[in-house]
Amino acid sequence: MALKKLGNQTVKFQNPPSIIATASIVGPVEGQGPLKDYFDLILSDFNFQEKTWEKAEKRMLKEAAEMAIKKSGVPGNQIEYFVAGDLLNQIISASFAARELGIPFLGIYGACSTMAEGLGLGAMLVDGGYADYLVVGTSSHFCSAERQYRFPLELGNQRPPTAQRTVTGAGAAVISSKNQNPRITYMTTGKVIDMGEVNPNDMGTAMAPAAVDTIVKHLEDSNRSPEDYDLIITGDLASVGKDIVERLLKEKGIDISDRYTDCGLLIYSPQQDVHAGGSGCACAAVVTLGYLFKEMQKGRYNRILVVATGALLSTTSVQQGETIPCIAHAVALENL
Amino acid sequence: MALKKLGNQTVKFQNPPSIIATASIVGPVEGQGPLKDYFDLILSDFNFQEKTWEKAEKRMLKEAAEMAIKKSGVPGNQIEYFVAGDLLNQIISASFAARELGIPFLGIYGACSTMAEGLGLGAMLVDGGYADYLVVGTSSHFCSAERQYRFPLELGNQRPPTAQRTVTGAGAAVISSKNQNPRITYMTTGKVIDMGEVNPNDMGTAMAPAAVDTIVKHLEDSNRSPEDYDLIITGDLASVGKDIVERLLKEKGIDISDRYTDCGLLIYSPQQDVHAGGSGCACAAVVTLGYLFKEMQKGRYNRILVVATGALLSTTSVQQGETIPCIAHAVALENL
Repeated sequence: MALKKLGNQTVKFQNPPSIIATASIVGPVEGQGPLKDYFDLILSDFNFQEKTWEKAEKRMLKEAAEMAIKKSGVPGNQIEYFVAGDLLNQIISASFAARELGIPFLGIYGACSTMAEGLGLGAMLVDGGYADYLVVGTSSHFCSAERQYRFPLELGNQRPPTAQRTVTGAGAAVISSKNQNPRITYMTTGKVIDMGEVNPNDMGTAMAPAAVDTIVKHLEDSNRSPEDYDLIITGDLASVGKDIVERLLKEKGIDISDRYTDCGLLIYSPQQDVHAGGSGCACAAVVTLGYLFKEMQKGRYNRILVVATGALLSTTSVQQGETIPCIAHAVALENL
Repeated sequence: MALKKLGNQTVKFQNPPSIIATASIVGPVEGQGPLKDYFDLILSDFNFQEKTWEKAEKRMLKEAAEMAIKKSGVPGNQIEYFVAGDLLNQIISASFAARELGIPFLGIYGACSTMAEGLGLGAMLVDGGYADYLVVGTSSHFCSAERQYRFPLELGNQRPPTAQRTVTGAGAAVISSKNQNPRITYMTTGKVIDMGEVNPNDMGTAMAPAAVDTIVKHLEDSNRSPEDYDLIITGDLASVGKDIVERLLKEKGIDISDRYTDCGLLIYSPQQDVHAGGSGCACAAVVTLGYLFKEMQKGRYNRILVVATGALLSTTSVQQGETIPCIAHAVALENL
């Protein structure tokens, strides 16, 4: 059963659900990055033997879910929900993966915050008694995202230094009521924050205030300080956004700089020429479920606050002159 | 606390959450239909004083949520979640409404099944102890949907008789742990069902098997028969899909024909020349939260099974030769 005080944005789970297995699949560029040894499968190209990038993305998500379920040892027919979403219009990666998985499906959308939304909702469903086992997943694909949100890749457009690279990959986690580490102990649901940014080539700047808002709310609601965490990690603010988060928090008297990093900074090396860093739903997903999950199992980290950020714009909203609404959801992962 | 047997798709709520207030806004065509007296606001045009149809849609959703909250008597700052989604790419109606509402936001996507997904998830969040009050909402708009999914309206394309008209409207409901009728007593989460249909101008045929699958699962899991309900109503199958549901269920020995109808049939009159009937996220939303909610308050209906259906395609998936994956989520509404 949950404990949540009215007015708070944070749920503290009284029986913290466990992440009993994870899987991560990445594309060829991420497979040359510093975290390459943590991923379960590295694709040799962008197509994954499919005819289109969108179908390749769907296949990554489907196979990541299957892989996580297999690792969990839970028979597939005992997985009660597939909670998933992605960046493509009408979340077709998730919907078509759900078609092939045959698991009752709850579609979600939080742009690049989707993994945290999914982990938080998944934990609520397990802790609330609605499922003993469920799988959460998300995906993104550099090529399908570029052509949907920006330009056809064939144009070879130049990108400004503030731009980020959409991570090609998929991550999935099986959440269960089993007593096993690591656990999901808190979920802080974000509000939509929009500081008036309009540049879709600078998502880090747009999303940083949402991350700050959610981190501050999480610390207030949980009565915790940054020192209670071994690591605070945002989803995909990359180099530009990460600096803004540190500065805005310092202005509020909160210093997280000695234990703070960003998934979009970790996934690529500076030599990879990806501009500001990584982004996309898969960025927080594969870094959290590939790298951080394994380091928690080893005991290197015991308390992590994952703050996945999402820019909730569309090409239509940009064309109609709207600014970029952003959100950040936080989940605390702990070895108890 | 919930009661759910492993392997079932159905949750039975032990403390069934209440729908304490609803609001519905519709466009001018729906405002001439047979249910017009049940809606809170009928727009005189498609623009709602906004510059674009997309902004009008967002405004409908935002105002429906505000109206439902006001009717509930709950102070706005005590509403703990806004659970919402819509048909537009990246669910911008919901995200931009969330920006203006300032309520912690969980974005969902289930195409035209979104209202049932939201009511079910909302009920889980309340019953699970994560919120005392939350608001669920969804919207659709004929003009924004046509230009996103089909053709620019300016072309004046002819539509086949199997086509449905996307309902212009928005519906919202405040769900609470208060002891008050009507309640949400069951949620059956759908699987994605795809029988190989490819015609995006005949959604009823595509979605009917998903509705059948969920109705059968609901009756099995809950150990109920159709006679346990005063009314079984699908979301937006309209005339073509409704007949298929009746026939497919009869083949399985289940006769619901004396207590079955469809939101897409009720919202327009045959004289309105809308072809097969209504569709869109708002179809199930305004019929359920406008018409059915009020008839339940009057006691005309005491047990309704709402089975909202969604076609999870996108223009990209259609262009890439994919068939149409469909889903249906069911929620039981009861006066206890």
